[in-house]
Amino acid sequence: MVRIGIFGATGYTGYELIKMLQNHAGAEIAFATSRSSAGLRISDLYPCPYDLELIAPEDAPLGGVDVAFTCLPHGESMPLVREIREAGVRAIDLSADFRLRDVSVYERWYKVTHSARGLLPEAVYGLPEVYRAEIARAELVAQPGCYPTGALLALYPLVRGGYLADERVIVDAKSGVSGAGRKLSLRAHFCEVNENFDPYSIGRAHRHLPEMEQELNCWSESSVRVTFSPHLLPVDRGILSTIYVTLVPGWSVERLVELYAEVYAGEPFMHVLPAGRLASLSYVVHTNRCAISFADARGDEFIVVSAIDNLIKGASGEALQSMNLMFGLDETMGLPL
Amino acid sequence: MVRIGIFGATGYTGYELIKMLQNHAGAEIAFATSRSSAGLRISDLYPCPYDLELIAPEDAPLGGVDVAFTCLPHGESMPLVREIREAGVRAIDLSADFRLRDVSVYERWYKVTHSARGLLPEAVYGLPEVYRAEIARAELVAQPGCYPTGALLALYPLVRGGYLADERVIVDAKSGVSGAGRKLSLRAHFCEVNENFDPYSIGRAHRHLPEMEQELNCWSESSVRVTFSPHLLPVDRGILSTIYVTLVPGWSVERLVELYAEVYAGEPFMHVLPAGRLASLSYVVHTNRCAISFADARGDEFIVVSAIDNLIKGASGEALQSMNLMFGLDETMGLPL
Amino acid sequence: MVRIGIFGATGYTGYELIKMLQNHAGAEIAFATSRSSAGLRISDLYPCPYDLELIAPEDAPLGGVDVAFTCLPHGESMPLVREIREAGVRAIDLSADFRLRDVSVYERWYKVTHSARGLLPEAVYGLPEVYRAEIARAELVAQPGCYPTGALLALYPLVRGGYLADERVIVDAKSGVSGAGRKLSLRAHFCEVNENFDPYSIGRAHRHLPEMEQELNCWSESSVRVTFSPHLLPVDRGILSTIYVTLVPGWSVERLVELYAEVYAGEPFMHVLPAGRLASLSYVVHTNRCAISFADARGDEFIVVSAIDNLIKGASGEALQSMNLMFGLDETMGLPL
Amino acid sequence: MVRIGIFGATGYTGYELIKMLQNHAGAEIAFATSRSSAGLRISDLYPCPYDLELIAPEDAPLGGVDVAFTCLPHGESMPLVREIREAGVRAIDLSADFRLRDVSVYERWYKVTHSARGLLPEAVYGLPEVYRAEIARAELVAQPGCYPTGALLALYPLVRGGYLADERVIVDAKSGVSGAGRKLSLRAHFCEVNENFDPYSIGRAHRHLPEMEQELNCWSESSVRVTFSPHLLPVDRGILSTIYVTLVPGWSVERLVELYAEVYAGEPFMHVLPAGRLASLSYVVHTNRCAISFADARGDEFIVVSAIDNLIKGASGEALQSMNLMFGLDETMGLPL
Repeated sequence: MVRIGIFGATGYTGYELIKMLQNHAGAEIAFATSRSSAGLRISDLYPCPYDLELIAPEDAPLGGVDVAFTCLPHGESMPLVREIREAGVRAIDLSADFRLRDVSVYERWYKVTHSARGLLPEAVYGLPEVYRAEIARAELVAQPGCYPTGALLALYPLVRGGYLADERVIVDAKSGVSGAGRKLSLRAHFCEVNENFDPYSIGRAHRHLPEMEQELNCWSESSVRVTFSPHLLPVDRGILSTIYVTLVPGWSVERLVELYAEVYAGEPFMHVLPAGRLASLSYVVHTNRCAISFADARGDEFIVVSAIDNLIKGASGEALQSMNLMFGLDETMGLPL
Repeated sequence: MVRIGIFGATGYTGYELIKMLQNHAGAEIAFATSRSSAGLRISDLYPCPYDLELIAPEDAPLGGVDVAFTCLPHGESMPLVREIREAGVRAIDLSADFRLRDVSVYERWYKVTHSARGLLPEAVYGLPEVYRAEIARAELVAQPGCYPTGALLALYPLVRGGYLADERVIVDAKSGVSGAGRKLSLRAHFCEVNENFDPYSIGRAHRHLPEMEQELNCWSESSVRVTFSPHLLPVDRGILSTIYVTLVPGWSVERLVELYAEVYAGEPFMHVLPAGRLASLSYVVHTNRCAISFADARGDEFIVVSAIDNLIKGASGEALQSMNLMFGLDETMGLPL
Repeated sequence: MVRIGIFGATGYTGYELIKMLQNHAGAEIAFATSRSSAGLRISDLYPCPYDLELIAPEDAPLGGVDVAFTCLPHGESMPLVREIREAGVRAIDLSADFRLRDVSVYERWYKVTHSARGLLPEAVYGLPEVYRAEIARAELVAQPGCYPTGALLALYPLVRGGYLADERVIVDAKSGVSGAGRKLSLRAHFCEVNENFDPYSIGRAHRHLPEMEQELNCWSESSVRVTFSPHLLPVDRGILSTIYVTLVPGWSVERLVELYAEVYAGEPFMHVLPAGRLASLSYVVHTNRCAISFADARGDEFIVVSAIDNLIKGASGEALQSMNLMFGLDETMGLPL
Repeated sequence: MVRIGIFGATGYTGYELIKMLQNHAGAEIAFATSRSSAGLRISDLYPCPYDLELIAPEDAPLGGVDVAFTCLPHGESMPLVREIREAGVRAIDLSADFRLRDVSVYERWYKVTHSARGLLPEAVYGLPEVYRAEIARAELVAQPGCYPTGALLALYPLVRGGYLADERVIVDAKSGVSGAGRKLSLRAHFCEVNENFDPYSIGRAHRHLPEMEQELNCWSESSVRVTFSPHLLPVDRGILSTIYVTLVPGWSVERLVELYAEVYAGEPFMHVLPAGRLASLSYVVHTNRCAISFADARGDEFIVVSAIDNLIKGASGEALQSMNLMFGLDETMGLPL
């Protein structure tokens, strides 16, 4: 039985993790922390019957766990992850703090000084479909952002194969509101979101952009650059990315389906749709799946559409998938298919 | 008092027209037809107190009206518009039947033989911000599709000015469900749309594509071609278009704001947002406005975001705007600002 | 031209008032205040093109207006209304501060000491369908709460006529989220409301209860007591009240329709539905209407269903209706029918 | 391994059953039928990766299954259930055909002649919390309607204990749209439901009323009669019932919590909330739970609020719970907690 600690258990990603772990036969929660709600139970904060007590982070018995998840905002994860690692415990970080290998890129985009840069070299980017072996032996896994997960899984086969003819990739992405977390903001007020739809931080302004470009440029010999347009959807969950690419000659939707089916063969959570069908949120919400589909524009221009649940495959589910790999468990344990 | 006939009064566009005409001081409804609901009142079909009787189309007293609106599916409008014109009555058609000047393009995309092609030369494309003078003296106005209205108003200043450096334009558009009309379909079932988001007919497959390209290529010396990706939003109304263009050197968001403010100066319904602000559906729903905004991507790549209410500015409101022009009325009469 | 001042212009009720006044031919906004956003324009806070500057409340030129609307939380209205009245300006208060005639009831339910109790005797309860004449000559109008408006209009004909056989009335009410205002709270977070539905303050716990009982007991010889169950609906706007009553013998749905049609004859905003039809939010949202309908249960038990738009008929629209009456204007001016 | 046949697999309840059975370790689907979609796979109809072929009902190999679920409209279930029983296979019927013990009540409310009345005596009402032992040995289980499940679980402890002081019970219920099934209707069109809320068949007009009264009057010495007001909520799933009762003297919310905790002790899916907390849809959607809570009105009047997921606890989940009981499996297998 893998023993788990969760730091920051009361945000949406922490709670999602708690819910999934109710159904995990090989792991159990040893502790869950909350700075603001220590002393309460999770059922005081969420509509659920789970009788799990929340403790202050400083009271967390790190000695009694095999792995700790950090579900905290960027900046707050760093010192905690250092502490976890110093206690000899494996760490799975859901914040942005260990995703960017180049610390200067991190500090420029997040406007924070990195206080645990010594740990960056050992951090593995927690995208199991790409880095399965590395995750299995990692001591520190940095889970991808929600937008990058959807876009990267959609682009990996093309970029790794060298099939992009134009370095420019446009990712027009649409996300449910839970992606912004549970903290209060006018942007998340029901009456501002409902019956609305709005773009934000479009172009080259969103912090998930450098993360996407880092990975794409790891997989590619030539340079790739992303134009990224996130939009806020009036739904709870899900990210749909409509991605515009120009390919080297010779592709068709059918050939793309074949390529992706091959690259993702055996992947339990990748769902490559047949030609003629397009991914939508309903393919993936409340599951750890990623659905991918294709359409042609004109000539060598193609559109790749991917969908994930931002809280599961885009956050806590993928993190649990990483944990299963790290402890040699069946990769699908506890994860909604 | 302009006397109005409405054919096909019980669909969403017909009803929207009826609602707006309750507040129009210079026009009144003389008759409203419905094939399936003749004999009923509009308040039997919609939650409203309007005591308007519906008659069969063949009973419509064309002799008593100054103008007739046809709110019917494509194919069904053609013969009716011919009849209206033969009765010497001006016609405003909300279907696709008279939008495409090249009848072979129409027949290829709509898979219908055009039975009133003799009227095509006199049809004016009902986009007031571009064709105000032509609409004012037109006998037959073909109102634009909802997607084209949003995209064309967003591109007109750039295309007319010759500022596109690349002929390819990507229109990633998102529409509310009322755009598909009131007819029953699984696609419009609440449980299929709610908490979902899905692309359809993306690439070069949607019938509004040739309409967009027709207009853009009228305004441009060089060729323009569109990649068009419509998506279905879980909202009643509104279309937001995120449009990717590459411009000739020298542009910035600020200069784009200036250009658009100048081109659309004095337009009562165009709302050009200042730099730093992005259009969203909430700027426009329940109004006849079109909001336009800008972001930069990299180098000469820019993003234009436009928003309209698909039932008002994208259909019945714009049609009423055309009617006001045709009869020399204040262009804003009856239209929600 | 009636000159208007608005205090607290940036909440939902203030903004709704501003929107409606754009279309009012007999009134104009002289000033609009906001403590937190003074110096900004309303278009900096809401997605609209209105070029209206917000000023600090202490800079409000009370001397230049005929009437002032106070769109503030309870407790904050009192001192301001006193100031307005001392300046000789008529006041329309949208808070709860002047609704309850018995100051001890007010202080018990709102847990605030009333600092302007001297004004209570002159305050008229702003329900035009009941107190039209009193409103017309009032100097201070206290607009009803949103829930009371819907419930009281549904019960007035029965209570006034003495047709209740049992003093107990159950009001099971369901409201859209805008009823709770624009202030931040976890309750109004999109992900907490969307796909959810929840009761709150049910039984005899909600502050609108004493207001309902005050009015009902004004109209009735015998005592009436209310069980009131508000619920939060995942919609922007609208209140639907399902009201259970036991009547004296002899009633039917048809006779109820007749009674209400008679009592509300000539009322521009009352929409009594025919037997067999039930009110829903779609009858009223975005209008100043109140729709009322009936069903029978068993024997002398009946159900009255009423619907209003909480921001319009339940707040700003009704307030504007009061203003029209106070200044001898057409009662429907500026109000969406 | 229990071998299962599903008749009518492509409606919402059939699909929900298929989804849950993906995670059931003790049962497997042997066949799934669809009259209109025979030959297709479930993944052709729903956004899922399940590779399950649909066969025509007449091709169903009844000989190879231990139990058959019938997910069909009332009237269509009867002959099929007879066939299933004649083949010696146990049947779990999700329609209304075997719920009402009095065939004349059935025929009056459903306007159908019952063609399998000989099976009525052996039909067990599939409410596990009340009829666990009977279900375990049943050959034919009639699953309750969705509204009755929520209301009956909320009333069982009070009625069985004889605590009602007034025979009248008011059930003001609100249901998500999936309750009406996947068939096309204007009522289920997105634009008719979204941002709307409406009552239907209120009073004593809905077919679930006789079912509720049948059960309540089984449990009670004195007569109970129900006023039932269903409303349509703009959400996918969930039923919340606000129930008004008058009790014999001596009750409080705290005592009610105690009573229910005792009656439902050990029930894996019953969630009795502590005093001060009220049930909402978010407590139960996507689970097989029923949440119950209480508020006091005045004197001996109390409000019981219950919530369930209409497709799970109100239909397919409860049916699976019955199946687990019938085959001696752990009652919670395959069911989302």
